[in-house]
Amino acid sequence: MDNNAAGRTADKTKANIYDVAALAGVSYATVSRYLNGHPNVSKSTAARIDAAVAKTNYIPSASAQSLARQRSHIVALIIHGESEAVTRDPNIMTIMATANKRIAQEGWQMVTVMADGDTGVNNITRMIASGFADGYILFTLEKGDPILAAFDKRQIPAVISGTGFKDNVPCPSVDVDNTSAMSDLIRHVLHPDPDHRRIHPAYISGPLNMPGAPERLTAFINTVTEELHPNYNLPISYNDDWLRETGAAAVRRWHDSGVLDGVDAIVCANDTLAAGAVEELHRLGRHVPEDIAVSGFDNSSAATSTMPQITTVDQHMEMRGEVLADIVIKKINGIDSPRTVMLPTELVVRQSA
Amino acid sequence: MDNNAAGRTADKTKANIYDVAALAGVSYATVSRYLNGHPNVSKSTAARIDAAVAKTNYIPSASAQSLARQRSHIVALIIHGESEAVTRDPNIMTIMATANKRIAQEGWQMVTVMADGDTGVNNITRMIASGFADGYILFTLEKGDPILAAFDKRQIPAVISGTGFKDNVPCPSVDVDNTSAMSDLIRHVLHPDPDHRRIHPAYISGPLNMPGAPERLTAFINTVTEELHPNYNLPISYNDDWLRETGAAAVRRWHDSGVLDGVDAIVCANDTLAAGAVEELHRLGRHVPEDIAVSGFDNSSAATSTMPQITTVDQHMEMRGEVLADIVIKKINGIDSPRTVMLPTELVVRQSA
Repeated sequence: MDNNAAGRTADKTKANIYDVAALAGVSYATVSRYLNGHPNVSKSTAARIDAAVAKTNYIPSASAQSLARQRSHIVALIIHGESEAVTRDPNIMTIMATANKRIAQEGWQMVTVMADGDTGVNNITRMIASGFADGYILFTLEKGDPILAAFDKRQIPAVISGTGFKDNVPCPSVDVDNTSAMSDLIRHVLHPDPDHRRIHPAYISGPLNMPGAPERLTAFINTVTEELHPNYNLPISYNDDWLRETGAAAVRRWHDSGVLDGVDAIVCANDTLAAGAVEELHRLGRHVPEDIAVSGFDNSSAATSTMPQITTVDQHMEMRGEVLADIVIKKINGIDSPRTVMLPTELVVRQSA
Repeated sequence: MDNNAAGRTADKTKANIYDVAALAGVSYATVSRYLNGHPNVSKSTAARIDAAVAKTNYIPSASAQSLARQRSHIVALIIHGESEAVTRDPNIMTIMATANKRIAQEGWQMVTVMADGDTGVNNITRMIASGFADGYILFTLEKGDPILAAFDKRQIPAVISGTGFKDNVPCPSVDVDNTSAMSDLIRHVLHPDPDHRRIHPAYISGPLNMPGAPERLTAFINTVTEELHPNYNLPISYNDDWLRETGAAAVRRWHDSGVLDGVDAIVCANDTLAAGAVEELHRLGRHVPEDIAVSGFDNSSAATSTMPQITTVDQHMEMRGEVLADIVIKKINGIDSPRTVMLPTELVVRQSA
């Protein structure tokens, strides 16, 4: 009734909270907080929102308001992985800090919970069921994570940071295109400049049950086959973790078995494996990149921790934290995102390849 | 009355929850959970606790029980620092993962909240006031952290991970003795073996408003003065952060001004500064440790990221996470800890000094 009284506002163009936010020049979350009596909205902002509400004839729906008032205003970041692996993953802190900053900007609080082992998963599943937070960001080191089922059943606002999930998950995921990024990197390693070719590449893989690892391995095999048509078995080291010492051990085994003598490039599934490989090659008296080139993936701090520094792919983890935060906050406010958001990657050429 | 009926149990030896736990062979937290009707206590454990309660004539106080039943069973880890600094601190993830594991073992849930800037501090202070968690672990990169006041006023179970706080805080702190650890390290750098002396040390400091930094600098000045009675100004680089590039820049400035020619050892306030120093010395064609020795502090991943690897002090951050968790859980259960718990440190001799 009030709405009809507005006269010039036809039903199909009825103003929504985003129209109010745009007109007031503030975020929708700020409008939502103000209209729901949440503190921390400045007087000048409040006045702009009041003016925008009046101008657009915006009427908040009672049910949306009631829903909003039940909110905890908490977004939970769930980190799922064994302590050891989590501690050594250089991307987690970056995502945590940047997502936290973005969520705080929206006036919400992010809390992080870590699930380590089965008990951890059960606890987290119970917390999700109890409505602990309004929305969830899942960072997982496992494919087919059982925590996903908790989101599926309850239509809870959630987003996944993980590589290689594609659309087989009950909520949006933020990802990079591992296949094309790794292929571009390998083409650079094989032809760093017009006068220079490398023709005997080897590969050090990460654990294939972890997101990203199978895509990167497949990209290696496919790209090398396309470019070189090799008539021999490509040396590939399969591993259970991403540790520096694992990269070093792979190189040492190839050295001991004589395989290393036939190799002029080592493509690694991430930067920590690559850093271990560079260090071991140095110990063995091989020059990087002159004797053997090495590449990584991630552009983490490990890539700049060696001499020479490592040629790699930047996954823009800072951007990922922000995008994850944006998606879950939008979803809480009823706005859907694309199922898979692919972030750009960037080839970072340093000295190692 | 019931208690008197036990006859042989005099008032001063009245059994408490720890007697029950010891007799049942389980943790006090398990006893507490069982007696307060919390799930996840196995049948055999329950039977053992029942037997122990009967044998000790333990009577839980009604007020303690009522308190226990209001518990959230959440311990919050508060990380306070600018995003940039937090992302690059190699100790935070270790404390987070090990404290999380310990708290999960006790059947509780740890959640981590990050306070980045003033808004963050206000939000966290409000969360503490609202009783968000039963206890708090504070990891702060600031001396005189304003969050401490929130614990002070309300007698909330809390513990601080920070170096250099000593007893000037309203709750227990877990610390290492920076002064004696740094002094031991410097004595090693100056006399690595009976036939070898280094007599011209320089120092690269971290930000002096951050925990640990002033103690380490003072230890440098005092130890060097004691050992060498130097009759010249010690080269000291004062810095606003702990970054690798900051350590490199300090070395480059000393090189450009000619100071480096008179230096045979560079003591750094932590490993990332030391890693930058090692890399810059390498770029300048100086050999480490033959021309100039370099030492770090922390035994973080940065210490093994250079060639040569860095001689440093291990602060046992894994142990710190566990001890922090133990203290806060005990405090929630009414058991006080010493005001300052000093963890052991260990000199780790590698190749750089």
